[in-house]
Amino acid sequence: MSKQYAIGIDVGGTKIAAGLVDRAGQILCRYTTRAHAQQQPSFVIETIVQTYRAILHQSGIDPAQISAVGLGFPGNTNARTGLVLGSSNLPAWDHFPLRDTVAAQVGLPVMLENDANLCALGEHRFGAGRGTQHMCYVTFSTGYGIGMIINGQLYAGHTGTAGELGHVVINIGGPPCSCGKLGCIMAYASGIGISRMVYEKVDAGVETLLREQLPAPGQRVAAETVALAAQQGDPVASEILRVAGYYAGVGLSMIVQILNPEVIVIGGGLVNIGPLVWEPALAAMHEHTQPELWDSVRIMPWQLGDDLGILGAAANVFAEIE
Amino acid sequence: MSKQYAIGIDVGGTKIAAGLVDRAGQILCRYTTRAHAQQQPSFVIETIVQTYRAILHQSGIDPAQISAVGLGFPGNTNARTGLVLGSSNLPAWDHFPLRDTVAAQVGLPVMLENDANLCALGEHRFGAGRGTQHMCYVTFSTGYGIGMIINGQLYAGHTGTAGELGHVVINIGGPPCSCGKLGCIMAYASGIGISRMVYEKVDAGVETLLREQLPAPGQRVAAETVALAAQQGDPVASEILRVAGYYAGVGLSMIVQILNPEVIVIGGGLVNIGPLVWEPALAAMHEHTQPELWDSVRIMPWQLGDDLGILGAAANVFAEIE
Repeated sequence: MSKQYAIGIDVGGTKIAAGLVDRAGQILCRYTTRAHAQQQPSFVIETIVQTYRAILHQSGIDPAQISAVGLGFPGNTNARTGLVLGSSNLPAWDHFPLRDTVAAQVGLPVMLENDANLCALGEHRFGAGRGTQHMCYVTFSTGYGIGMIINGQLYAGHTGTAGELGHVVINIGGPPCSCGKLGCIMAYASGIGISRMVYEKVDAGVETLLREQLPAPGQRVAAETVALAAQQGDPVASEILRVAGYYAGVGLSMIVQILNPEVIVIGGGLVNIGPLVWEPALAAMHEHTQPELWDSVRIMPWQLGDDLGILGAAANVFAEIE
Repeated sequence: MSKQYAIGIDVGGTKIAAGLVDRAGQILCRYTTRAHAQQQPSFVIETIVQTYRAILHQSGIDPAQISAVGLGFPGNTNARTGLVLGSSNLPAWDHFPLRDTVAAQVGLPVMLENDANLCALGEHRFGAGRGTQHMCYVTFSTGYGIGMIINGQLYAGHTGTAGELGHVVINIGGPPCSCGKLGCIMAYASGIGISRMVYEKVDAGVETLLREQLPAPGQRVAAETVALAAQQGDPVASEILRVAGYYAGVGLSMIVQILNPEVIVIGGGLVNIGPLVWEPALAAMHEHTQPELWDSVRIMPWQLGDDLGILGAAANVFAEIE
């Protein structure tokens, strides 16, 4: 096999991370730089191309050995057309031809997919979901969403937007979500939801350590700040994390009830907080899943951690060329 | 082709309906008899076999021209093992080898599947979902659940229980559902839920025509009774149907958000009630679906109506032998 490598590039919330990946899921060379999808498309694309060139330069690899560039983007994408469909948060990207713009500059095929789907592909090929036919990956991070593997393949839906579990309603008439609707799962089970709940408590005058730890006005309270306050014994911080975990677990129950997968892999920064969110999540999953289905599924934490974005983008390339 | 026919047999809530079906979805001969899954397995199996023999006798067909018998059952089933997995409502069927018991008596292969999945297969092959790759069928009837077609094939999940949308929680701590959990979609969006809401209103002393129209103690209030009262101007009956429709529509929004199908076909007896449930269902779907996804899906009523059980069971046979 002459083309046994892929380059995976992950456009994330704070950085662009890239790696040269072989078929065994080894990252042979990596490069990370600051840029993110909130910035102007021209700047992000320039940075993606720089990142690609840095990988070539560092590794000394011949581009002829690279199958394609896998590219992950944190928003709705259409793999067939290569367009970013954008989202309410990213107006500059609306129907932007990201795939073809990057491909023209790197001179290799580029495969575009949204980040949650790539995480599912990455954990399925190289991580906790290896060998399964039907698997879901849950992103429990700044946002909340899923990627689905069905019959061993990524399932992205009719228009590529499947997996928007974070914006499923769970509390009719409930608190506002970043999407503009009310009472979505993500209004609780996400970094965005945690920050919302902190401000709600502080604005209501509740006594909490978090009052002294607020960021600049308009900024999100980091989940790590809340976790630290909880570890210092602040009951308000603990309760906020419990609620976030609980609703993440309600989402797990929906996955089991509707999709009946063999494995659910849950990853993202909030998983790293540990039992403060993990225990209420499992409790909620059991509370809201029919008991006869409890044994049908295994719930596992991610295995690939911070490498998942790169490895998922590379997995998408390897899945396509097989 | 020597074997161009299937026999579809639908074990329903009140009757067993069977038909001889050709590959174009024509029912050439049909036979219906009273028996249902709440009765003892031995009686139900005897009736299934009688029904099969009646079809052979009426049509005069040579069994050598029949590919297989498709058998639909209203509960969890495992297509690979041919077992009914049972449910809390049907203890006598727990792990009952229905497929092989029937096959031994009819002398033909039997293919067992649960009824919601067969409805999806039937509407996909012969009805409103023809030509689609990704489709959901929603049963809005005594219960509430979905069957999924993904990449043109039935998706039943890892253990065959996918599609239990009716027992997804929508109101945490809400009213009891028939499954034993609280606040499920089906506690509202089903014949069972409608009856529950009627008794709740009557027990609370609310003024309503329905008070005079209750069935024998312990019996379910028929949705048709509620629809008639609503048509006679009873605001309580109208409101109950509105709530049932609204939660059915919340379920539609979950399907769009999570599965992003091309078409959702909605069928079952409650669809026949018309705008009193249909309008709040569509309103709720829009309220709880991200606006950028509204145009991604077509919502259609079923086309096959009362024939869907038979045609779905036959479609399962034709799908397998292709």
